Amino acid sequence: MGNILILYHSNTGNTAKMADFVAEGAASVSGMEIRKLTTDEATADDLQWCDGIALGSPTNMGSMAWKVKKWWDTEAIKKWLEIDGKFACAFSSSAGWGGGNETACNAMATVLLNFGFLYFGVTDYVGKGLTPHYGAVIAGEPREEKEKESCRRLGRRLSEWVGYYREGRAELHPNKARYPRDPKSFE
Amino acid sequence: MGNILILYHSNTGNTAKMADFVAEGAASVSGMEIRKLTTDEATADDLQWCDGIALGSPTNMGSMAWKVKKWWDTEAIKKWLEIDGKFACAFSSSAGWGGGNETACNAMATVLLNFGFLYFGVTDYVGKGLTPHYGAVIAGEPREEKEKESCRRLGRRLSEWVGYYREGRAELHPNKARYPRDPKSFE
Amino acid sequence: MGNILILYHSNTGNTAKMADFVAEGAASVSGMEIRKLTTDEATADDLQWCDGIALGSPTNMGSMAWKVKKWWDTEAIKKWLEIDGKFACAFSSSAGWGGGNETACNAMATVLLNFGFLYFGVTDYVGKGLTPHYGAVIAGEPREEKEKESCRRLGRRLSEWVGYYREGRAELHPNKARYPRDPKSFE
Amino acid sequence: MGNILILYHSNTGNTAKMADFVAEGAASVSGMEIRKLTTDEATADDLQWCDGIALGSPTNMGSMAWKVKKWWDTEAIKKWLEIDGKFACAFSSSAGWGGGNETACNAMATVLLNFGFLYFGVTDYVGKGLTPHYGAVIAGEPREEKEKESCRRLGRRLSEWVGYYREGRAELHPNKARYPRDPKSFE
Repeated sequence: MGNILILYHSNTGNTAKMADFVAEGAASVSGMEIRKLTTDEATADDLQWCDGIALGSPTNMGSMAWKVKKWWDTEAIKKWLEIDGKFACAFSSSAGWGGGNETACNAMATVLLNFGFLYFGVTDYVGKGLTPHYGAVIAGEPREEKEKESCRRLGRRLSEWVGYYREGRAELHPNKARYPRDPKSFE
Repeated sequence: MGNILILYHSNTGNTAKMADFVAEGAASVSGMEIRKLTTDEATADDLQWCDGIALGSPTNMGSMAWKVKKWWDTEAIKKWLEIDGKFACAFSSSAGWGGGNETACNAMATVLLNFGFLYFGVTDYVGKGLTPHYGAVIAGEPREEKEKESCRRLGRRLSEWVGYYREGRAELHPNKARYPRDPKSFE
Repeated sequence: MGNILILYHSNTGNTAKMADFVAEGAASVSGMEIRKLTTDEATADDLQWCDGIALGSPTNMGSMAWKVKKWWDTEAIKKWLEIDGKFACAFSSSAGWGGGNETACNAMATVLLNFGFLYFGVTDYVGKGLTPHYGAVIAGEPREEKEKESCRRLGRRLSEWVGYYREGRAELHPNKARYPRDPKSFE
Repeated sequence: MGNILILYHSNTGNTAKMADFVAEGAASVSGMEIRKLTTDEATADDLQWCDGIALGSPTNMGSMAWKVKKWWDTEAIKKWLEIDGKFACAFSSSAGWGGGNETACNAMATVLLNFGFLYFGVTDYVGKGLTPHYGAVIAGEPREEKEKESCRRLGRRLSEWVGYYREGRAELHPNKARYPRDPKSFE
């Protein structure tokens, strides 16, 4: 069994919808236990419990929402230097394209690196002109199928790395994926 | 007169098309002289000549193309510590949304800050769900009107700051803009 | 007169000491009115009042402290789209070198860009092996003279840009500075 | 056996010295084969060969040197979408503190994420006031013992993650480290 934490905050519901799809993707790999929790619900024990985390936030001023930062500054800090080496990725919804959803993912990456997480993006394209290279990013809520798939793929990749590295399940490596990953698939 | 430099490199032609629209936007403010040059054409003298720069690159591996970096490392360096305080912004075209066009603008911002530029993004929305908050960003080439406008707006804002601050033209401040800027305009 | 806002939060007192030196540097340019306020004290009106801002935070998890982010998310937002084009810079104290003081300045830069500020770093070296290229950064509190000067220089440069661009005081351009700026000065 | 690639470019010799210490640290974990190569020497096959990479560059304009970027844009690209899931970290030498060595590591992180690497920093302190949180960073060349140790620790951590995750060597997890890691150790 691998333990997957989807930790997020949502202001308008958009990031919550992304979290649902991320969880769906994580659960598409067998043998994963999923906890989907908001920063109001989660404690540092959830962080210690997990093997991998997907951290989500609305894009607020190009960065994570202050409530997300507060959780890491005041709650997660209890486990600092004890939780190195878990897998991590990020997702964010901005009001518009160009509005900072990538920069918000980067801001979350910095926090996660500070805690010793192994941070990753997803090389795959999930449809024409959309990829979660540095985290799953959406303008508004995920509406189009490929936008939903971007969130799912992020969660799936998280479970894949946990299964591949913690449980030695070689078949979970993306090189063996049966789903389309290459941007050429969508041309 | 204000001097505006549009400096860019393009692999596929997409960034070149963005540069055209950026130049069009810059020229929409009266009294600006525009030089649109590739990194193969421009010299450090062009940098010294300008009052403001828009720097453009394809998104390559989430950052600027190596040719753009080479230009700053080997050509622009001749003027380092002599050209502080000019205005600057960035634009980038990635293969897909989520593919690093914001991170590429950030990478260019870091280089520009190193040279003492005053770096800015554009608060305005230019259509529903699109803004050049940290630079103008496009997936592929600018096709939709709002994508073209995002490039134009970046160039226009560059000319506005140059005109406002270097020539004291108070009417150029975005607070006095007659074009729609507020995201509410597009709901 | 130019209006300078030094806005900061401090956990341990280190960032507060940096703020003192930043204020001293800002005041070393004649004709500047300085407000030095914590994020507990300042309101969005202070933001509107200022012509330039130096934003300071302890480095917490490689980014700004959550209280600083909260201020921008909940207080500053009242003036979003109304305060474009002011000058801005950042400063941060981390527990150690390599501990994220540059990444924290970058995180603050992203927030400031979102509000339309003209963000700058300082090209100058302020002593052997120390520069505020992307903001003034210190490990712990400023102890050595050059560390204090790094903070002062940031504040001074802020006042210089405000004086140069808003009041047309050409003598304030760094190119005319009488203090040493070039790294060669310290070899 | 684990395969470790130290890939770097050096202008002045400072980054080369860092690379030596990174290699020394990587080799301090038994059973690792190390290749230390410059970007002039390495090919994409070296990238495919490795289980983990430490990527080093001088800090040039706050980012990696153009030659490093060129290597990824033109050589590494041959293996894009085929090499996901390897471990990665970065190191950089700047002319001064505050001069962008953290921002350069971040720029390299972005490139590495684009290729699907699992990027990590090191939570450990390696002496009073020094840590490789986002990569090993030095102003100039590593001189003090703790500066050398910062490079060694980065390399060691890289070998630890490779040994822990690819070979199931539980004793290599940092939680079981016998060397001091906690900043309190150095107070």
